[in-house]
Amino acid sequence: MINPQTLKGFRDFLPAEARRREYVKDILKDVFESYGFEPLETPTLEYEEILMGKYGEEGDKLLYRFTDNGDRRVAMRYDQTVPLARVIAQYQNELAFPFKRYQMQNVFRAENTQKGRFREFMQCDIDTVGSASPLADAEIIAVTYFALKKLGFENPKILVNDRSIFTNLTDHPDNLVPEDKLVSVIRTIDKLKKIGKEAVVTEIVENGIQKDKAEKILEELTGTNIPERLTEVLRIAKELGIPENCLEFFPALARGLDYYTATIFEIEIPEYPVGSIGGGGRYDKLLGMFAKESLPACGFAFGFDRVMEAMTELNLFPIDLQTAEAQILVTVFNPELVNSAVELTAYLRNAGIKAEMYLDDNTPLDKQLKYAVKREIPYLAIIGPDEVSKKSVVVKDLLSRTQETLSFEELVVKFAN
Amino acid sequence: MINPQTLKGFRDFLPAEARRREYVKDILKDVFESYGFEPLETPTLEYEEILMGKYGEEGDKLLYRFTDNGDRRVAMRYDQTVPLARVIAQYQNELAFPFKRYQMQNVFRAENTQKGRFREFMQCDIDTVGSASPLADAEIIAVTYFALKKLGFENPKILVNDRSIFTNLTDHPDNLVPEDKLVSVIRTIDKLKKIGKEAVVTEIVENGIQKDKAEKILEELTGTNIPERLTEVLRIAKELGIPENCLEFFPALARGLDYYTATIFEIEIPEYPVGSIGGGGRYDKLLGMFAKESLPACGFAFGFDRVMEAMTELNLFPIDLQTAEAQILVTVFNPELVNSAVELTAYLRNAGIKAEMYLDDNTPLDKQLKYAVKREIPYLAIIGPDEVSKKSVVVKDLLSRTQETLSFEELVVKFAN
Repeated sequence: MINPQTLKGFRDFLPAEARRREYVKDILKDVFESYGFEPLETPTLEYEEILMGKYGEEGDKLLYRFTDNGDRRVAMRYDQTVPLARVIAQYQNELAFPFKRYQMQNVFRAENTQKGRFREFMQCDIDTVGSASPLADAEIIAVTYFALKKLGFENPKILVNDRSIFTNLTDHPDNLVPEDKLVSVIRTIDKLKKIGKEAVVTEIVENGIQKDKAEKILEELTGTNIPERLTEVLRIAKELGIPENCLEFFPALARGLDYYTATIFEIEIPEYPVGSIGGGGRYDKLLGMFAKESLPACGFAFGFDRVMEAMTELNLFPIDLQTAEAQILVTVFNPELVNSAVELTAYLRNAGIKAEMYLDDNTPLDKQLKYAVKREIPYLAIIGPDEVSKKSVVVKDLLSRTQETLSFEELVVKFAN
Repeated sequence: MINPQTLKGFRDFLPAEARRREYVKDILKDVFESYGFEPLETPTLEYEEILMGKYGEEGDKLLYRFTDNGDRRVAMRYDQTVPLARVIAQYQNELAFPFKRYQMQNVFRAENTQKGRFREFMQCDIDTVGSASPLADAEIIAVTYFALKKLGFENPKILVNDRSIFTNLTDHPDNLVPEDKLVSVIRTIDKLKKIGKEAVVTEIVENGIQKDKAEKILEELTGTNIPERLTEVLRIAKELGIPENCLEFFPALARGLDYYTATIFEIEIPEYPVGSIGGGGRYDKLLGMFAKESLPACGFAFGFDRVMEAMTELNLFPIDLQTAEAQILVTVFNPELVNSAVELTAYLRNAGIKAEMYLDDNTPLDKQLKYAVKREIPYLAIIGPDEVSKKSVVVKDLLSRTQETLSFEELVVKFAN
């Protein structure tokens, strides 16, 4: 007998969790569409050459790749940005630019699962391709903010920065950061909120920069004025309805990814302070990898699992999502009375009431009741021989443990209210 | 430069098509949920041993399988039935039985693409596990029928049969079909509608059965009475609201898959006569593959691509699905007037109107108009210097090619009607 098990890092989503995921996806979709973002789906498998070398050395190692039956080298989706770049090059003439798309598909990474990471997880991206304007940055920030509000988060906090302030470090008269160390210094600075000032200075020093310079770097960053372009982005974002106190200029925000070129931002949930639940920014040089020229772009990626976690923790899921859809379970009293149960079920459904029927005619009533309880269906309908003759039905309220006898019509009225 | 291309048999879904797919998925989901079917998601990758040997010799060949970075043999989802069997064995105590689930995920098959087949495509399954009652069969038929009605198909035609009538052939006093030839004979009979009586007889004869017996087989099938259990299934299905003329007993219906044990059914769309758009039935012996004992089950699989095809052919998609979500595109007159455009956009959105803003401040108006046309956004808003001073907006109707000047308030009223 084969042991029924899933691979490490891969998950089944049983109904209760699957339903919560659908709920979040549906809300995000609605908000994205209302801002004019359109859905895109790309294949799970791509030619290996499309993905290899696009995610750095570490990324190449984490790619799931293999030789298919036709001796082609193929790889599984690793993110949704490289496929977006491919789509843009492949269908340039069919798409309207600026091209605003959202994408919610699973990606695959052969991660170390001991770090609590998954090997298959959903990414949820929005991107605007083909506009270099601060209008596009501000819109991405706005749609993200309003999507989170719609999910029930009260005060999403948006930390924003502009990568240009880091180039000021390399151009500094004191030569604070040599060009070739900028990326690793940015990565270290990114941890400021997490590990504190002292640890950041230590890490920069370990990277071969003198201590006084390391301290100066942090000082410079903290004293930085908001760059002109970012000021414009923030102004438009406010005009689009984001409250001022939800937007914070945070000059030490770096975002690990090398490819950002201007605006970068991250969102935190103050009531659930475990880091960001998503991030994004402007990346004007990435999307040219399959084309003759690059296209300016700006986007945001929700950490879907993190959003699910935060919503669970903060009780943001509606109560009726925890239970089955059905309002009432119509039981089957015995094999002779199947007809009555079927008739009542059809009658209720016709009246627009979500009714389920117990799918066996030879199960003791107490077992049918237990089924309703396990499925969290709140009411039970019973039609025994007495009820058949009177064309009535016994209705049990499983929460209050009360019951009443009603006609079919009365039962419909009860649920209509 | 790497050529931007997809693998043969794999597809991108650009916005217009992706949106149509979402529309169909959402309707199916709604109907499934209203009948108490619950969502389930399983991983894309499984241990190879979970999938190997479950789909016959041919299936094993079509599996995408490989060795992962951790030297595990893994395989990609091939269908949703074997993962369902695994889930049922793995979470037996957590699930409520009868367990009614739906699942819509992509599956992977290294098919011959010359036959017009895809290598990645979505399956859309509903199954009831743990009930042997005709109630379960009838409910699966009903939910399938009403899902197709909700999609807009006027007269889904349901062909039904019961596998038991084939065992009557082996038990026949004239020894019509030897037991070991039953499966291949069933497969041949399944083609009756497609290739006609004569070709079926020829194929059965080629299989080593005498011509007079082959003819007798078809005669016997045609003259068969509806088996008792199937009569009950059909009676309940009608009681659940399926019109009598949509249900047809078709004794030569066989369904290729070996694992069906009782009811089998297929759905055809009379207005789109290219074969079935889905099929299903009862399979009481399959789900025990990972458990100590088997569980009776009954299910249906929609041919999702076939459904999409039929809906496109029959024009069943709502017109507003062809276009962008936005009702109006707010243009940006020039860099100085960005504010006015942002202000109007926010104003319209606040009033519940789906407005998009052109995401660049330095694009000629005619290019912005072309963008609206390509995205099929029906109205254009223009705020030039004149309008700013009067707090008004020029609204162009792109369909009738007319325009009018309105105040912000008047514009909201226009769209509210």
